Amino acid sequence: MGDLDLIKRFKIDDGFFGRYERLVRENVLPYQEKALNDMIEGAEKSHCIENFRMAAQMLKEGRCDGEFYGMVFQDSDIAKWLEGAAYSLLMYPDAELEKRCDEVIELIGSAQHEDGYLNTYFTVKEPDKRWTNLCEAHELYCAGHMIEAAVAYAECTGKKRLLEIMCRMADHIYERFITEGAEGFSGHPEIELALMRLYRCTGDERYKGLALHFIDVRGADREYYVKEREKCCWTVWGNNPWDTEYNQCHAPVREQTKAVGHAVRAVYLYTGMADAALESGDGSLAAACRRLWDNITGCRMYVTGAIGSAYEGEAFTEDYHLPNDSAYGETCAAIGLIFFAGKMLRLEHDAKYADVMERALYNCVLAGMELDGTKFFYVNPLEALPGISGKARSHPHTLPVRPKWFTCACCPPNVARLLPSVGEYAWTLEENTVYSNLFIGGKLDLGDKLGGSIIMQSGLPYDGRVRYTFESSLGAMNMRLAVRMPDWSENTVINKNGAPAVYEVSGGYAYIEGPFSDSDAVDVEFDMTVKRVYANVDVSDDSNKVALQRGPLVYCAEGADNDGEVLSLSIASDGAVRVGEYAPDELCGVRKLYAEGFKTVKNNGLYSYIRPKKISCEITLIPYYAWANRGLNQMRVWLPEI
Amino acid sequence: MGDLDLIKRFKIDDGFFGRYERLVRENVLPYQEKALNDMIEGAEKSHCIENFRMAAQMLKEGRCDGEFYGMVFQDSDIAKWLEGAAYSLLMYPDAELEKRCDEVIELIGSAQHEDGYLNTYFTVKEPDKRWTNLCEAHELYCAGHMIEAAVAYAECTGKKRLLEIMCRMADHIYERFITEGAEGFSGHPEIELALMRLYRCTGDERYKGLALHFIDVRGADREYYVKEREKCCWTVWGNNPWDTEYNQCHAPVREQTKAVGHAVRAVYLYTGMADAALESGDGSLAAACRRLWDNITGCRMYVTGAIGSAYEGEAFTEDYHLPNDSAYGETCAAIGLIFFAGKMLRLEHDAKYADVMERALYNCVLAGMELDGTKFFYVNPLEALPGISGKARSHPHTLPVRPKWFTCACCPPNVARLLPSVGEYAWTLEENTVYSNLFIGGKLDLGDKLGGSIIMQSGLPYDGRVRYTFESSLGAMNMRLAVRMPDWSENTVINKNGAPAVYEVSGGYAYIEGPFSDSDAVDVEFDMTVKRVYANVDVSDDSNKVALQRGPLVYCAEGADNDGEVLSLSIASDGAVRVGEYAPDELCGVRKLYAEGFKTVKNNGLYSYIRPKKISCEITLIPYYAWANRGLNQMRVWLPEI
Repeated sequence: MGDLDLIKRFKIDDGFFGRYERLVRENVLPYQEKALNDMIEGAEKSHCIENFRMAAQMLKEGRCDGEFYGMVFQDSDIAKWLEGAAYSLLMYPDAELEKRCDEVIELIGSAQHEDGYLNTYFTVKEPDKRWTNLCEAHELYCAGHMIEAAVAYAECTGKKRLLEIMCRMADHIYERFITEGAEGFSGHPEIELALMRLYRCTGDERYKGLALHFIDVRGADREYYVKEREKCCWTVWGNNPWDTEYNQCHAPVREQTKAVGHAVRAVYLYTGMADAALESGDGSLAAACRRLWDNITGCRMYVTGAIGSAYEGEAFTEDYHLPNDSAYGETCAAIGLIFFAGKMLRLEHDAKYADVMERALYNCVLAGMELDGTKFFYVNPLEALPGISGKARSHPHTLPVRPKWFTCACCPPNVARLLPSVGEYAWTLEENTVYSNLFIGGKLDLGDKLGGSIIMQSGLPYDGRVRYTFESSLGAMNMRLAVRMPDWSENTVINKNGAPAVYEVSGGYAYIEGPFSDSDAVDVEFDMTVKRVYANVDVSDDSNKVALQRGPLVYCAEGADNDGEVLSLSIASDGAVRVGEYAPDELCGVRKLYAEGFKTVKNNGLYSYIRPKKISCEITLIPYYAWANRGLNQMRVWLPEI
Repeated sequence: MGDLDLIKRFKIDDGFFGRYERLVRENVLPYQEKALNDMIEGAEKSHCIENFRMAAQMLKEGRCDGEFYGMVFQDSDIAKWLEGAAYSLLMYPDAELEKRCDEVIELIGSAQHEDGYLNTYFTVKEPDKRWTNLCEAHELYCAGHMIEAAVAYAECTGKKRLLEIMCRMADHIYERFITEGAEGFSGHPEIELALMRLYRCTGDERYKGLALHFIDVRGADREYYVKEREKCCWTVWGNNPWDTEYNQCHAPVREQTKAVGHAVRAVYLYTGMADAALESGDGSLAAACRRLWDNITGCRMYVTGAIGSAYEGEAFTEDYHLPNDSAYGETCAAIGLIFFAGKMLRLEHDAKYADVMERALYNCVLAGMELDGTKFFYVNPLEALPGISGKARSHPHTLPVRPKWFTCACCPPNVARLLPSVGEYAWTLEENTVYSNLFIGGKLDLGDKLGGSIIMQSGLPYDGRVRYTFESSLGAMNMRLAVRMPDWSENTVINKNGAPAVYEVSGGYAYIEGPFSDSDAVDVEFDMTVKRVYANVDVSDDSNKVALQRGPLVYCAEGADNDGEVLSLSIASDGAVRVGEYAPDELCGVRKLYAEGFKTVKNNGLYSYIRPKKISCEITLIPYYAWANRGLNQMRVWLPEI
């Protein structure tokens, strides 16, 4: 089954995600289109589309007006936007949008060289330096994103123009790295996972082979980038080629045991590795993926699903090093973790992958975007301290409010492509078993073989009731329904047609045997009791602290609800936590939590020998994804518990 | 009274500091001498002495063998060492050491140019670039340190050779910046405070004028360094000349309100400013010093007296930003804070300056050196996490064990010069009042006018009893004794000859009227009750945490005493803290603390929905200054309190 099959088969109809799908169509995509065309006042300039125009002019006239502007990987921004638009068009056909996409694709095509090469940075700015700096220059990365866009656009709209363009580019890459035997691999992984998608879309085995090639050569020669630097004699940022962990080339990928270096690079690589393991049956590759997964989720992931503890290198650091206020937690990295989880879920049916996927999606990724879809976080800390966050020399990255756009704008269009493609992660189909991973309402077409659809109604994330009903053209569908039992639901009740369902639990899924007919209904009631989450004692920043979670949502306390500040607040260990009514008009619809706790009365001076008084208070918490939507604000996910 | 008068008059005889004085003579100075001569195996190379040899050869032969090695300010290492040796020679006459010092001074003299200029970096490596990069190149900084050494050596040994050398260099600087009117000031302040010392030592008003000039021009033109960079076209480290806060030239010094930028630069500058305010009676300069002092000690200082929260720029960050595990807290910065406090104490008799001076000395500065005097910390965090500290990308600076030496070795010789000069800080003499600031045992010669000495016996830091007795050649000394009432002693008892003394308290000093004769004794008993210290709630890292302090000593928990780790430990808010017996054989003599508390039992996994169990335990704490003397170890100053 193609990657996009599930996206195409799943029509979202969900109270919570439905809003996001509409938002993507109505606000996010139009806003980003303007941003990529430099039409947002007061925002950082993108120049992305303009770079393509200049590259096209360069190819046509041998010269161009103006200069390349932006990051060396600026091309990838429009690729991600196109991919998001493709998914959105599936759900919301929009002839105007599709026409504009087609025009952008024509522009992209006109920036492609005769030999298939496509990259505006090199075409406009460095025509003689193609392929000389794989360590930094992101050529294969940009190609990967445009390939993903091409596959998505072809699958979603049936239009193959971009796919043809990118097959020519992929052929050009194949020619260079396989036929001609050129050395090297991409400093920023992405091409690997993209080529796997291209392979599945086209059936061309060469693309799979090329993906495997790039996976295999990575880290085989640890000094490859050192030699490249010596040879190429130019650098984009002066990255240290000896810092092999940064690029995950410190060891052959099958020997890697810890998630290290730039977090986005890491999870993009692991996604490609897992996909390749899936398609090739390579057990050692799958084993490496499992080890790396366990290291991330067992030692290096924030409770919000954010990954990457350090600003330095936007990187993983060491086990249990998860500082809250200086967290990097790039939005793209959480998205990449979802990609990785998605592939692992296909490699093996274990709900632990979906648990993390859900955690990253509902918390870190959604927090990456303002509720109105027009501002974005690149970095997602778990504590915000106005006056320090985004201001202190050590904290330039942890902005406490979302900017309109970024010089390095990888995250916003990544959100725009993820949100309309959640169908791919919500379900897994395998033979006659339908795995329900994420509880997002909608209708899933099971295709001709099973002959029908599943309709899911879901109250999540605020109401734990989920109902599956069935539409069968054949009277009944001979299938098995596997419902994920989320780690946060202690007592899950599953009924079939009003009576306790018969099911077996394996790997975190409840397997309910069919057949299912139009008159059947499976009702699942998840346990939405508020959970207190505790970090391992080795996480220094969370000592004696607690985070509150309800369903998949991690909560945080913001100054706006708590008399302007949260650093003085502690949660009572024996106190009650009350769940507020659903408030449709607040923060686009939330249920707040109200926890019994204490407020420490501020002492005078920096230090005091007198224990400050604590007075009882009620602490209001909101879902983490909704933070920073009410101006500059203190915020804390982890609160002391006393 | 000259700066060194008190050092010369005070003969230390103290159980605690006496060990440090001997250590400086027996271990620290000889070890550092070897390091500066590149004779310590396995240590970073210094090349400091060798640079002087090469400079001398260059002047003699117009060429030299080898190349300059080390930091641009490498010359200052030997200057600080010489200054330390000078103080040590006062207490421990040592003909061999003095001879070697004289030889080094001759070597320094032979590296001086005809025109008085002295700097091996420029003589050996960049002869054409003198005075072209004041922002980075540390010429005035090195001159300042060598001037301090010259003054100290002249005062302590009576030998004026180095003083003559440095007067020639000071004259050269005067010629350039005053007579010829060259623009500029030093990127790293130090020359200002040094010139004030040179002025007091020589009585030459020009040096005071030059110091005031450098203070006055700083920040007057905020873009001075930008213009300099444009003109000079070379850079040492590529420092950003627009980052005016880093160099404290963001505003004229009298208008500065917050302690910003590189912490050592800041406190060296403020020391010079306070000294200049003292000598010139400039009220606006004194007011700026008070504001900056209040900002540091009220918002930007660790409980150990460490300053500088960020690795980035070795700098102050923002108010209340005091992260423990990533603290910079450079040893030199705490030393500079002591210098600043010393000058403020002369500006006004307020014990708050001595409180901080004591805090920085007994905690941060002493922690900067291994107990055996042969290893050193540059950075002094309040939490050490082996596996993260000194290892994570974000924590290259917070080494959990002391190295033998540093490429940038400013701190070790700074400790070597501070410790034998504590007399300067222990006492203030003003007319007929003797201020007792630090309780370090010894004999203070009050000079001919008062005609006698004070002898102090002190049990600090472990025993709170201090006794003052008197030796008078005239029968009685017509003086007033002002005993500092430390902030940590709630109930201080002062007796004179066995009966409660009559005294008035003002500005944190108990003023006891004389006269005092040979038969008098003033006994002070400080309250050594263990104090629980609480940080302001705005300090995020210390939320619901407590530090323990007894007398001037801040304590910490180390893994070595607590089953290998400390992150699981919490102190019981209603629990007792037992004070251990003095253990002369442990950590060179300490009293440990034993606090009732809890140990959190480690959960499996990174996160858990189950509250981890806490079991009662006794937590052992040691003085912070003694940490990291027993190998790689977790360490925490601030522990959760429950």
